[in-house]
Amino acid sequence: MAGSTFGKNFTVTTWGESHGKALGAVIDGCPAGLSLSEAAIQEYLDRRRPGSAPLSTPRKESDQCEILSGVFEGKTTGTPISVMVRNTDQISKDYSAIASLYRPGHADYTFDAKYGFRDYRGGGRSSGRETIGRVMGGAVAALILKELGIKVHAIVTSDLFEVPAQDSIGGVITCTIKGLPAGIGEPVFSKLDARLCEACMSIGAVKAIEIGDGIKVASMKGSENNDAFAVDQSGNIITKTNHCGGILGGMSTGGDVILKAYVKPTPSISLEQETVTREGTPTTISVGGRHDICIAPRAAVVVEAMCAMTVLDLLYENMHARMDRILDFYAKD
Amino acid sequence: MAGSTFGKNFTVTTWGESHGKALGAVIDGCPAGLSLSEAAIQEYLDRRRPGSAPLSTPRKESDQCEILSGVFEGKTTGTPISVMVRNTDQISKDYSAIASLYRPGHADYTFDAKYGFRDYRGGGRSSGRETIGRVMGGAVAALILKELGIKVHAIVTSDLFEVPAQDSIGGVITCTIKGLPAGIGEPVFSKLDARLCEACMSIGAVKAIEIGDGIKVASMKGSENNDAFAVDQSGNIITKTNHCGGILGGMSTGGDVILKAYVKPTPSISLEQETVTREGTPTTISVGGRHDICIAPRAAVVVEAMCAMTVLDLLYENMHARMDRILDFYAKD
Amino acid sequence: MAGSTFGKNFTVTTWGESHGKALGAVIDGCPAGLSLSEAAIQEYLDRRRPGSAPLSTPRKESDQCEILSGVFEGKTTGTPISVMVRNTDQISKDYSAIASLYRPGHADYTFDAKYGFRDYRGGGRSSGRETIGRVMGGAVAALILKELGIKVHAIVTSDLFEVPAQDSIGGVITCTIKGLPAGIGEPVFSKLDARLCEACMSIGAVKAIEIGDGIKVASMKGSENNDAFAVDQSGNIITKTNHCGGILGGMSTGGDVILKAYVKPTPSISLEQETVTREGTPTTISVGGRHDICIAPRAAVVVEAMCAMTVLDLLYENMHARMDRILDFYAKD
Amino acid sequence: MAGSTFGKNFTVTTWGESHGKALGAVIDGCPAGLSLSEAAIQEYLDRRRPGSAPLSTPRKESDQCEILSGVFEGKTTGTPISVMVRNTDQISKDYSAIASLYRPGHADYTFDAKYGFRDYRGGGRSSGRETIGRVMGGAVAALILKELGIKVHAIVTSDLFEVPAQDSIGGVITCTIKGLPAGIGEPVFSKLDARLCEACMSIGAVKAIEIGDGIKVASMKGSENNDAFAVDQSGNIITKTNHCGGILGGMSTGGDVILKAYVKPTPSISLEQETVTREGTPTTISVGGRHDICIAPRAAVVVEAMCAMTVLDLLYENMHARMDRILDFYAKD
Repeated sequence: MAGSTFGKNFTVTTWGESHGKALGAVIDGCPAGLSLSEAAIQEYLDRRRPGSAPLSTPRKESDQCEILSGVFEGKTTGTPISVMVRNTDQISKDYSAIASLYRPGHADYTFDAKYGFRDYRGGGRSSGRETIGRVMGGAVAALILKELGIKVHAIVTSDLFEVPAQDSIGGVITCTIKGLPAGIGEPVFSKLDARLCEACMSIGAVKAIEIGDGIKVASMKGSENNDAFAVDQSGNIITKTNHCGGILGGMSTGGDVILKAYVKPTPSISLEQETVTREGTPTTISVGGRHDICIAPRAAVVVEAMCAMTVLDLLYENMHARMDRILDFYAKD
Repeated sequence: MAGSTFGKNFTVTTWGESHGKALGAVIDGCPAGLSLSEAAIQEYLDRRRPGSAPLSTPRKESDQCEILSGVFEGKTTGTPISVMVRNTDQISKDYSAIASLYRPGHADYTFDAKYGFRDYRGGGRSSGRETIGRVMGGAVAALILKELGIKVHAIVTSDLFEVPAQDSIGGVITCTIKGLPAGIGEPVFSKLDARLCEACMSIGAVKAIEIGDGIKVASMKGSENNDAFAVDQSGNIITKTNHCGGILGGMSTGGDVILKAYVKPTPSISLEQETVTREGTPTTISVGGRHDICIAPRAAVVVEAMCAMTVLDLLYENMHARMDRILDFYAKD
Repeated sequence: MAGSTFGKNFTVTTWGESHGKALGAVIDGCPAGLSLSEAAIQEYLDRRRPGSAPLSTPRKESDQCEILSGVFEGKTTGTPISVMVRNTDQISKDYSAIASLYRPGHADYTFDAKYGFRDYRGGGRSSGRETIGRVMGGAVAALILKELGIKVHAIVTSDLFEVPAQDSIGGVITCTIKGLPAGIGEPVFSKLDARLCEACMSIGAVKAIEIGDGIKVASMKGSENNDAFAVDQSGNIITKTNHCGGILGGMSTGGDVILKAYVKPTPSISLEQETVTREGTPTTISVGGRHDICIAPRAAVVVEAMCAMTVLDLLYENMHARMDRILDFYAKD
Repeated sequence: MAGSTFGKNFTVTTWGESHGKALGAVIDGCPAGLSLSEAAIQEYLDRRRPGSAPLSTPRKESDQCEILSGVFEGKTTGTPISVMVRNTDQISKDYSAIASLYRPGHADYTFDAKYGFRDYRGGGRSSGRETIGRVMGGAVAALILKELGIKVHAIVTSDLFEVPAQDSIGGVITCTIKGLPAGIGEPVFSKLDARLCEACMSIGAVKAIEIGDGIKVASMKGSENNDAFAVDQSGNIITKTNHCGGILGGMSTGGDVILKAYVKPTPSISLEQETVTREGTPTTISVGGRHDICIAPRAAVVVEAMCAMTVLDLLYENMHARMDRILDFYAKD
């Protein structure tokens, strides 16, 4: 499908630009019978809102979501859920500077290269505000997972500190998925780790992903990296260590899934930088305005959202992996 | 689609197990009119063959490919290309040990958890031999890219050394994509980096992926990480540095795309390890047989294959990004 | 993908119920640089509006569309276009009758069977109002096709007449696609006719589809059904007749594509009919309210919309069918 | 995906041409634990084999299938099943006539228009032999459906008679699906009837599809076409008649699903017909060789195969339609 729909059986289609009328998501594949309210989605949205986290932009956005379809008398109906957030805090200003210049570290140039022109009012579709749709989709996925006893949680695990001058810093987000049964993920191209990586690397500022021990595995010996199998007190098969980050052969082991996402420093800085105009004339730029010093604190809930959607989609796919379970499912019908 | 098909418009469907009759790939979406021979595909296959690289298994596999469809008088016809490799060097042996035990670091347990049982003759579908189909698909993609002046190349960039005892080691593979025009990749979920990550993380032993500066970005300042724009001698817009690894906003900058894949040590080691039986009884295992000490050297061509398929698929998708170019395309028709 | 997204590269995701807050579509894969206004979409919407056609419901719906994203300074940007129509003419009434009974010919029972319950205020997601999203998506596709010189047009070709008592009638819609170049459609599963059929049969009331001579071919001889090839005055290869409806082997011939869709009579009639309650108690029902006597006149633009989206999607897919054209496309880049 | 893969969660990728080395299918998404043998697939293949049906070609093809992967000790493993049939009865002959001429009613011209050239040895990819892959995929789907108590059966329901001279005739195939539970199919674009239509219209010679009363609905009144609901002796809700062909709102009613496919006469006839050369010079052609007088008898099993795959795919998709059933499924895990 075109690139604004995520997922295969649980799909989230997002739309909207930073300076357009609104942003939203259409969530399709949500089962019928889930209790769902705007308040439940809002709880997730509030975690990505400016001002909700350290080092974030002073831009004020209420970001109130409105459910437009798919819910009847407080329950999902199985039909697509459309959720929307109106843009309200757009300061009308002169965008002529960034209209004609390429901001370093931003997608201005690549947008022009692809489409011939761009919506130059802020980041447009590559703005951080695009993640509003992701978070709303992820909120619904997380609510379903919660009913299944699966918890996805992401936090910043790097040091956050103010930087001198008018600069910015990067950060690390660690996401843990607890309660996932063993065997989730498909063995070849649609591995659990492959799908999680795609999901998280599709978040604007992420530049590296690790599963379990991550880059360290390259300098480890097999005897150090292999996780011995054992049996817990309930008789369940477990791994004694978790170097593998809860995934073997692309399928969950039943242990915690551990993923780390590395986020680059906010590219918008007011320090003067070299750049060129659209016509290729060298010049300099200083990006003013209201920006996060570090994106990581607000991006944690986005990582969580992407992981929740991915895991749910693979839980669906796993439902037809075994003949006996398909028979059992339809026997009750 | 089910998890054995990769790609959207250029698709590769792989099949086959380590100890079955054969392994293969169906390559769909190859344009008509490409010169293609078994020899051209074989060149790629030979790079992943045992014995072709340092620290690899002594298992002998000729791995001769046979094209079964899609090529007529030396040219592709636009119809699906079926390519197959027969398994020939299967030593008939007693698999009862691994049939009843879970090898640490392998997918034995997760396969059982998902499917209820498994083909216990070697790795089955999660064997390294599964990558034969990927390499054959990647070879065709690479040949198309070559005509377009795009070169994908992967090499091992970590130290390779023999390890003491009967252990194994991990490694690092760096893949560089040269000649990719700017603007390739879709801005939201189907970003170039997201798709490359999914592609490479779906390779069995990979546990981390970096784009450009990768994990380092988390501890960098914006002023260090941003790549200044400049103009080269031909008047093209370029970045003066390449911290971003040739990708901004999920789209190529026109600079080299740089990806690193971190490969875990071969899990098959003859050192004794703790494990459990299928029934959950603690025991130990020593995995004999013919295994690579380090997978990285043979996996480089697999990384290359996955990247080639990904890039080609996104080049297709980019063809309908602009109204003027669609008009131009069909005007000539 | 889940069932509310249509298409592969040009995708339209629809949402909304008859008695919810709004209905809408997210159109993804529209190229950058197309002139697009709400007025242009409104023109299509007005053709499906109640009162716009003979034998249609007196329900008044202004159905004004609002573009929420994807358009900047009158041009599409290549990002998803979100369009919405607010529901305004919902008469607040007592739905307890249809909440507990199954209306014959409607999807009430099958919705309950699938989801366990349903939004019983009118047709919910299976209401004719669901087609609003389709028409908005089709309008955008048709505008792109128009630039390419391709015209999709559907009209009612059966007799329309008032029926006695309080009954309803069916009808026939004939859709003609003019100007489509030869070779559009993919030869096996994704044939032009297969895709058009899926598209049109997905419209609520359609029960049969014919391509070209349709059902008549079953009683024809090869000598009658084959279309002889000839050359027109400009030297182009054409067929002298068009029994095949402009499609051979799933690909367009360059002649007019002809499709007929057979629409069932409106199931909502005020005549008394036998039915059962949700609990299975036999009873009778007379469906009051404001309904179309014949759906066909208002459904013509829906058929047109579905065909336009299908054809555009296949035009995209065709762009990477030939190596020489891919080379040519990227050579200009 | 590119056009040779059918289905979303149960996928079948077919490959092969009439005069290539072999034809085959990769069946992905088959659950683990199904008993499967070559003999079981062969039973379906034999029904489409030349000579198995009235009015069929004297071309002799043994069409013996070989399973290459995905089955271990007589059971499917959940991994892709590759099945192949070698071409054996290719008469080496002079194809220069059809290489340079366009056979009326065939895809020769449209293939050239799309790809620039074609494999002119027989029908290539648009040959009836392409359906071998479909039948093998359908056989596996049908075996799964059988375990679920669902039976798909297609027969010829038009008169078959010899035609004078060296002509051919068309025919009608009626397919009945029994035992399908209510609620299968997705309400909007992925309706059961839409998907069945796409599936059957993708078979080479099919030119019309009807569901239930089909084209007759256009001239019926609502009071005639609506199926009254009733309760059977076991207390199940049923429809008293089946004008709807077992489908309402795109979902199964629990009654028999009835589909009719109208097949055109074999285009290969030895009567002289007008045509043009590749260069556009008018000429005549008489198509010799061994051809079916009527395709319908051999195509019945292909219709059955396409319907079986479609129904299974939608049964999978239906498994995550309700929150309570998802909870129930994973509770047992």
